[in-house]
Amino acid sequence: MLVVMQSHATEEQIREVCKRIESLGLKAHPMPGSLRTAIGITGNKGAIDLGILESLPGVVECIPVSKPYKLVSRDTKQEDSILRIPTPSGDVIVGGDKIALVAGPCAVETEEQCLAIAGRLKKSGVRLFRGGAYKPRTSPYSFQGLGEEGLKILSKVREKYGFGIVTEAIDSESLDLVEEYADVIQIGARNMQNFSLLKRAGRAKKPVLLKRGMSATLDEFLMAAEYVLSEGNYNVMLCERGVRTFSDFSRNTLDLAVVPAVKKRSHLPIFVDPSHGTGKRHKVLPLSRAAVAVGADASSSKFITSRTKRSPTACSPSSPRNSSPSPTKCAKSRPSSTAPSIDVNESELRQLGCPL
Amino acid sequence: MLVVMQSHATEEQIREVCKRIESLGLKAHPMPGSLRTAIGITGNKGAIDLGILESLPGVVECIPVSKPYKLVSRDTKQEDSILRIPTPSGDVIVGGDKIALVAGPCAVETEEQCLAIAGRLKKSGVRLFRGGAYKPRTSPYSFQGLGEEGLKILSKVREKYGFGIVTEAIDSESLDLVEEYADVIQIGARNMQNFSLLKRAGRAKKPVLLKRGMSATLDEFLMAAEYVLSEGNYNVMLCERGVRTFSDFSRNTLDLAVVPAVKKRSHLPIFVDPSHGTGKRHKVLPLSRAAVAVGADASSSKFITSRTKRSPTACSPSSPRNSSPSPTKCAKSRPSSTAPSIDVNESELRQLGCPL
Amino acid sequence: MLVVMQSHATEEQIREVCKRIESLGLKAHPMPGSLRTAIGITGNKGAIDLGILESLPGVVECIPVSKPYKLVSRDTKQEDSILRIPTPSGDVIVGGDKIALVAGPCAVETEEQCLAIAGRLKKSGVRLFRGGAYKPRTSPYSFQGLGEEGLKILSKVREKYGFGIVTEAIDSESLDLVEEYADVIQIGARNMQNFSLLKRAGRAKKPVLLKRGMSATLDEFLMAAEYVLSEGNYNVMLCERGVRTFSDFSRNTLDLAVVPAVKKRSHLPIFVDPSHGTGKRHKVLPLSRAAVAVGADASSSKFITSRTKRSPTACSPSSPRNSSPSPTKCAKSRPSSTAPSIDVNESELRQLGCPL
Amino acid sequence: MLVVMQSHATEEQIREVCKRIESLGLKAHPMPGSLRTAIGITGNKGAIDLGILESLPGVVECIPVSKPYKLVSRDTKQEDSILRIPTPSGDVIVGGDKIALVAGPCAVETEEQCLAIAGRLKKSGVRLFRGGAYKPRTSPYSFQGLGEEGLKILSKVREKYGFGIVTEAIDSESLDLVEEYADVIQIGARNMQNFSLLKRAGRAKKPVLLKRGMSATLDEFLMAAEYVLSEGNYNVMLCERGVRTFSDFSRNTLDLAVVPAVKKRSHLPIFVDPSHGTGKRHKVLPLSRAAVAVGADASSSKFITSRTKRSPTACSPSSPRNSSPSPTKCAKSRPSSTAPSIDVNESELRQLGCPL
Repeated sequence: MLVVMQSHATEEQIREVCKRIESLGLKAHPMPGSLRTAIGITGNKGAIDLGILESLPGVVECIPVSKPYKLVSRDTKQEDSILRIPTPSGDVIVGGDKIALVAGPCAVETEEQCLAIAGRLKKSGVRLFRGGAYKPRTSPYSFQGLGEEGLKILSKVREKYGFGIVTEAIDSESLDLVEEYADVIQIGARNMQNFSLLKRAGRAKKPVLLKRGMSATLDEFLMAAEYVLSEGNYNVMLCERGVRTFSDFSRNTLDLAVVPAVKKRSHLPIFVDPSHGTGKRHKVLPLSRAAVAVGADASSSKFITSRTKRSPTACSPSSPRNSSPSPTKCAKSRPSSTAPSIDVNESELRQLGCPL
Repeated sequence: MLVVMQSHATEEQIREVCKRIESLGLKAHPMPGSLRTAIGITGNKGAIDLGILESLPGVVECIPVSKPYKLVSRDTKQEDSILRIPTPSGDVIVGGDKIALVAGPCAVETEEQCLAIAGRLKKSGVRLFRGGAYKPRTSPYSFQGLGEEGLKILSKVREKYGFGIVTEAIDSESLDLVEEYADVIQIGARNMQNFSLLKRAGRAKKPVLLKRGMSATLDEFLMAAEYVLSEGNYNVMLCERGVRTFSDFSRNTLDLAVVPAVKKRSHLPIFVDPSHGTGKRHKVLPLSRAAVAVGADASSSKFITSRTKRSPTACSPSSPRNSSPSPTKCAKSRPSSTAPSIDVNESELRQLGCPL
Repeated sequence: MLVVMQSHATEEQIREVCKRIESLGLKAHPMPGSLRTAIGITGNKGAIDLGILESLPGVVECIPVSKPYKLVSRDTKQEDSILRIPTPSGDVIVGGDKIALVAGPCAVETEEQCLAIAGRLKKSGVRLFRGGAYKPRTSPYSFQGLGEEGLKILSKVREKYGFGIVTEAIDSESLDLVEEYADVIQIGARNMQNFSLLKRAGRAKKPVLLKRGMSATLDEFLMAAEYVLSEGNYNVMLCERGVRTFSDFSRNTLDLAVVPAVKKRSHLPIFVDPSHGTGKRHKVLPLSRAAVAVGADASSSKFITSRTKRSPTACSPSSPRNSSPSPTKCAKSRPSSTAPSIDVNESELRQLGCPL
Repeated sequence: MLVVMQSHATEEQIREVCKRIESLGLKAHPMPGSLRTAIGITGNKGAIDLGILESLPGVVECIPVSKPYKLVSRDTKQEDSILRIPTPSGDVIVGGDKIALVAGPCAVETEEQCLAIAGRLKKSGVRLFRGGAYKPRTSPYSFQGLGEEGLKILSKVREKYGFGIVTEAIDSESLDLVEEYADVIQIGARNMQNFSLLKRAGRAKKPVLLKRGMSATLDEFLMAAEYVLSEGNYNVMLCERGVRTFSDFSRNTLDLAVVPAVKKRSHLPIFVDPSHGTGKRHKVLPLSRAAVAVGADASSSKFITSRTKRSPTACSPSSPRNSSPSPTKCAKSRPSSTAPSIDVNESELRQLGCPL
């Protein structure tokens, strides 16, 4: 259910409608738009008496929303959501006509490794730094991440270079800490339907980057985001990272058609992660370009929704081209990550950094 | 790494080897077999000095295990694991030459509903009752289960009919309660790679039923079980419930070939859940029969280790054939479950209940 | 469109209705049932004047058939189709309450090889012998089959042991020859949507074994069969042989749920081919048993639709257990087949041969 | 096996080597490159005596090729293949740094329909016109194409507007006619492993556009092309058109990562068909842009070898936006095509027409 307010409705009137909705035992989600505010209602299990709401001052009409997702839907909010991620070097804008870039190592291994990568990324125009402190690993015997120690290293990267930090939370304990240390809370593909974690992220004060599950349908993907929004956190960014198919030449099949499909159904921004999507170095740059291209709006180049590409591990220990001493050293003390390491140089990143 | 003990090694000797392993900062997992005990070692990141261990009294040899899964592997334990699940009416055996049956409603809705279903199942020879108190739902607006209230209802079913109770835990909080109230802790398909939850289940005192993720490879499935065993809980049952494919005539594609594949690689018992696997009533019984058949060992009918799990709603409110008053009533007060409800009558269950 | 005749309608009346249908430029397909005959109409692009047909003597009613498949549909013919395949040793019945078995080598390589395999299969109760004379190979450089020479070898197997011969046709030229030499024309998975070939098979006088395409939906599978029936050949047997999915532990994912799904929608018999479906020897027997089990009708054992299992290459050259001299010799002169060779012994086949 | 000739080897020497190869019962495939010629050898089942060939004048060395595909491999020919398709208005270049566009109706329905579409496409810079005269249809009751009548209509389009004509052949009979009337012979996805048809196409004098099968792996795709080359026709263009996955929001999942993957392994040009790949109008333009972007070579913009194929029905009868009288009329006399009809206007095509 959606309550559409008049364009000149006052803050007071909006508050009144919300209060009335909550008095019915429901939850109100005011969604301000450029022209008017709409108020999403969730929690209703039966029919709601629309008369009560439609007669309130400032209300235009009540619209039943039939789609399974409500708050993420473009029916609820027609304009693209544009997120501002506060970082020490100013807000990073996600959405609109700029391309946001996220880059960094797969796993945080040492302070030296992270600072070295960050120094190089800084020059290429990347403003969001990602690296895993908590790693969801297929094997219980693989390196599971440095935990809070890793978050502290990321903090230093943040402090020294002014990056916004994106890092994954894998359960409610780690989410508490990620919320404290980082700027964006990542929910990984394996946890896309970990509904307890999604609800916890929905109560967080930081934006959420939600990765598509390996075999998630579009509806399931949007419903996972709906979990986060339904708890009150509207700062959600989606991320396509490849799905699982019979195709065996790449680790996953990057489903770029999901970008226009999401944009048709939802106002949320969507990222593409071509490094997990392909797992092969020589495919990252072509697919990053394709990711940028697929998001261009057909009717007007002004509405290019911004998408982010992650080019991980700019100088991972397992990369043969890298011979800087410190990461090599760290590889001895820490088990090397099993995820593929992809080396992308600065000029390549700079190429991508240019808005269309 | 696996330490193979002599067949006449004493308890004392086994304890000594374990103590020595732990003194090296590693974890020891003694796995008693009918002939001898093997001790799995996990936690080793580098090379272990085998000399120290091989020279201990009672040790035959140390074998490096190259597979990513160790404790679940048949290399570690050659005989099928046979689990005893204590219930008020005696142990239910899972593994060996009997077929265990699990049945019950999708979601616990009311005490009346559960007792009615339980009464009918009791007559059909089912000894494990399943029903969800915590429901992982695609939509945040769907009925999420009764929580602890549901667990209390399941307790009454347990008390009144002597069933062992199987129910799902979705996070560490619910796992604490499920461990307290139920006999088997179920980890659902969506949480198969929720590694924090798997570790918590590995520290539980109750057996774990681990369902295969919707797009989990066989290795990922076994590695998820390895997470549970690596924390010390060796009472794990696997469950095939269908995977996600292009095929559109059933909800999922039941991958029965995984049964002999698991049996070749692992000693763990494996269930099949044909109701989630197909989502269609007319396919449940044929596929249940196929599930029983696929587990029969080719060379000798004594080694049938496959077991079938039946989770269809024996008398769910949404079934048109059911006209008993109480479940109908409950459907009004509770949102009806969205999962397909499959009506299987008692004689059908009795048919399946007969061991081959 | 379906014209339902009265139960006591005469042959003459049925002929009259068919004649009238054809006079409208359409095609009539009389389908005799145990109670009455129905006449399927195909070729109608617009509306047909039902009045003309319904007023003819012997006609009960005309029913529009909305499904995309008509002649294969159970709406058109309620009873299971039971096929009689004439062989030198009498008719082999497919459908009903017996399990038909088909076995033989992947490719026909030499006369010695085929006669040796045939001799062993004869003892195990198999009555249909299959072997490829035309092999659809992924590589142009792989052995493409012996062609007509292979068909002549199969003829000798037929003559000497009384087997019915099942062999694949890959184009219209080979179909002409297969129709001449063999008893059942196989259309392989790669050609399931080779519509020219399907139409040619529909004009053949021999029964057709149609294998499901690697990524064919159920509707596409039934529509492919419809192509054959629509040309007048109603003797079609379907065959599930595994579909392509992300799952990597077996060559294909055997989709056994398709058996009850086909039986619900169609009257055609369905085979299961677990050797292509799994590609692994240790899975063939369990999955053959499962294939038999999945087809058993729940309510009455009288309606068990017969299904056939193919256990290929009872003594293929590449099988390590086989040491007979001639196949070994032939392996030198012929490139060995790339398809997996699975050795199933006679007692195993005999086990399967028993009807339920 | 590959015979590498000296850069200054004469035509005469090359002919000699080929003659010698053929005298060994093998097939020689001279592949001229910008620096030197390599001669591929196919048909060898055992070891070849390299000494004979390496001692011939002009030969540098003989290299064994281990990949299953040989002639399509970049090992055989390092430079991108650049095809020249002769058309009445001059050669259309496929490969290199231009983007070729192919557009036209799904099925040829009437002369008026085709001429109307062609007239609009002419203005947008498209130089290859495609339309189906032979339609491989899932249902035997769907419109199967106009056959030779359709080819004659395409001839008129060719004559009037100077387009090169691309149209599908579905069997050897239709291929004879397509070869006569059209400029490019299309092999559809359903026939990608119709090896008899591939061989026939390999003996054709016209270039071949080979579409990827719905569940073809990369190796199978390249091997299908190898079939065509192995018969002597080296003018092959590949085409990605989407694969079949669980994902249900689009008809197929466009696998754009196959473009860099093909380019790494093969010298053949590759098209992308986003209209079949997505089946949705609003996704065609974004995915066309992505297709162009994914083919751009990372290190140098001069080597863009990716090309985009656009096959949407520019003014199909079933498009709601189109109200021109003649296509509407034809829709009455011909069953409308079941394939999705996608309306793309001229300025959109012009946008794509610009090389990067």
